Amino acid sequence: MQTFSYESLYRFVYQVFTAIGCSEADAITAAEGLLIADLRGIDSHGVARLSGYVRLWEAGRINPKPNIHIVHETPSTATIDGDAGLGLVVAPWAMKVAIKKAQQAGTGWVSVRNSNHFGIAGYHAMQALAYDMIGMAMTNASPLVAPTFSVERMLGTNPIAVAIPAQKQPPFVADFATTTAANGKLEILQRKNADAPLGWVQDKAGQPTSDANALKKGGALLPLGSDREHGSHKGYCLGSIVDIFSAVLSGAGYGPWAPPFVSFLPLPAEPVGEGLGHFLGAMRIDAFRPAEEFKHHMDNWISRFRNAKPAEGHERVLIPGDPEREAEAERRRSGIPLVAPVVEDLQQLAQKFAIVWL
Amino acid sequence: MQTFSYESLYRFVYQVFTAIGCSEADAITAAEGLLIADLRGIDSHGVARLSGYVRLWEAGRINPKPNIHIVHETPSTATIDGDAGLGLVVAPWAMKVAIKKAQQAGTGWVSVRNSNHFGIAGYHAMQALAYDMIGMAMTNASPLVAPTFSVERMLGTNPIAVAIPAQKQPPFVADFATTTAANGKLEILQRKNADAPLGWVQDKAGQPTSDANALKKGGALLPLGSDREHGSHKGYCLGSIVDIFSAVLSGAGYGPWAPPFVSFLPLPAEPVGEGLGHFLGAMRIDAFRPAEEFKHHMDNWISRFRNAKPAEGHERVLIPGDPEREAEAERRRSGIPLVAPVVEDLQQLAQKFAIVWL
Repeated sequence: MQTFSYESLYRFVYQVFTAIGCSEADAITAAEGLLIADLRGIDSHGVARLSGYVRLWEAGRINPKPNIHIVHETPSTATIDGDAGLGLVVAPWAMKVAIKKAQQAGTGWVSVRNSNHFGIAGYHAMQALAYDMIGMAMTNASPLVAPTFSVERMLGTNPIAVAIPAQKQPPFVADFATTTAANGKLEILQRKNADAPLGWVQDKAGQPTSDANALKKGGALLPLGSDREHGSHKGYCLGSIVDIFSAVLSGAGYGPWAPPFVSFLPLPAEPVGEGLGHFLGAMRIDAFRPAEEFKHHMDNWISRFRNAKPAEGHERVLIPGDPEREAEAERRRSGIPLVAPVVEDLQQLAQKFAIVWL
Repeated sequence: MQTFSYESLYRFVYQVFTAIGCSEADAITAAEGLLIADLRGIDSHGVARLSGYVRLWEAGRINPKPNIHIVHETPSTATIDGDAGLGLVVAPWAMKVAIKKAQQAGTGWVSVRNSNHFGIAGYHAMQALAYDMIGMAMTNASPLVAPTFSVERMLGTNPIAVAIPAQKQPPFVADFATTTAANGKLEILQRKNADAPLGWVQDKAGQPTSDANALKKGGALLPLGSDREHGSHKGYCLGSIVDIFSAVLSGAGYGPWAPPFVSFLPLPAEPVGEGLGHFLGAMRIDAFRPAEEFKHHMDNWISRFRNAKPAEGHERVLIPGDPEREAEAERRRSGIPLVAPVVEDLQQLAQKFAIVWL
């Protein structure tokens, strides 16, 4: 495990994105969007994925100079074509449109097609906070999740993020995959050769299994709730809603037709839409209630929940966003630790693009 | 178990609502909104709750002649004061505002304060379908749910409903509590003197328990996900988002200050808002994409998911809304079965209001 400063990783990632042809402005946007995952402790979505984006570019699936554009709009909505750009560039562009719509119409809702993986959803939702708005972001993703009662991989881990501003308290930031466990957590277990808790994955027959490698053997991730008795049909609903809002509404590839993130898997033979889809939203607080009044009550909400009586064996009750906020403070101070395979991966990128290694 | 026709129960419920002082139009709206729960097989939210509404009226907490009004609005939003009316009346009024906003601005979003229990969320979301819109509905509720790591009841079962139109296929209708199991399911086990599956409730120390009566002994319902390892923090996020959108945004009682449904529990001593809150939304499909094109793809989405390969021991994969749709078809045909305690409850209401019993 080696540790790198945010600044040094930022310079490196920026150079990789310019090397594949991104404009300076887009490379800055993409580097920020990628590294915020490492800062916030969501290691699966940060620089660990950089070589994956590069391979998608090599496979011709990422357009480094996209003509992102609005294809349809109303006062409070827009449909955006990402022109196969990096999701890390397309989603911030789309979020700006949502925020502008909200400034004028109270709320703004943008469905995006023809995009790619956009990093962590929470980052995009949080863009609304500075405007005293609630931000929302969701995206569909490579099919890895079986619906309740099924063995077929039909949905992605399809995350939902909601960011809500407060006054003196830090914002409420929920950001979670609609599965019991994100795929990144399985990958950590695979590296350790450890078992997964029952309820995270099923085998290819649809039976519960603790095999962390079940996905490589035809198994599937399980929707939030794990099994029918514990509400997996609700996680299946959530993942489906994300899929439909992000991809059916925009004209992207939905369900099992969502394009895979890994470049070695073929694209669907008979596509039903273009690329991945996102759904982004912004709601102006004062479209409902004076912002100061709302934020005062959010402070009260947050401190009341923080002070809820802890269960035996727990010291405190957390607010959505607390763990990521603590990780970010720590990593901005002490640097971002990277496991050896990720460091090697980045070193190969340095070689490929003749970038001076850190 | 006795079975009653929809029509006879409808006439009865209508008479009860007029007896407590509702206008004819409001009694029709409330009777429809209440009985749709019985039709769709969500027995806990239908006529079984009628005497509960009456007791709230007797306690002066329900205003049968509310002056429901918009207190603030923008092109795509409104904040509505329900004037302590029946949620069954307030929510349809608010949903009409959301739909009207969507007709003009593409989407409409309404946060409601000073309301009461609104029946099943799915019914309100489904109002948008006839307009080729996606409908959304959520509400906060009496605090029964402990956040992850806590033993305090801080949130309601806070349901989320999303209704999405298709063309030849029936609509996609998700409607679910953000807990592992709804309280109604526990009540069924209590009547049978049966154990609950682990993961539905915790005891007052925050330990897992299969005691279906745990809530009466200081325990709490668990957020969707059941425990931290299986993602209960995600269910906690969802319930919190519903609470904030419904109640902090509108000015209703939020978190542990949400007013209890049962009339024998006191209202919070130092309220932070008025009554319960709801959040309703409508998005015009053609604000994003031609409606026919979208609905054609929804047909494809639905049939693809219906035809996903079933797991061993299962015959078919369901689409959100299928079980309720099947219950409704059956109960419209064969009537609505009511357990003896509910029948006795209704007979007492008949006596109280001198209504001819069925």
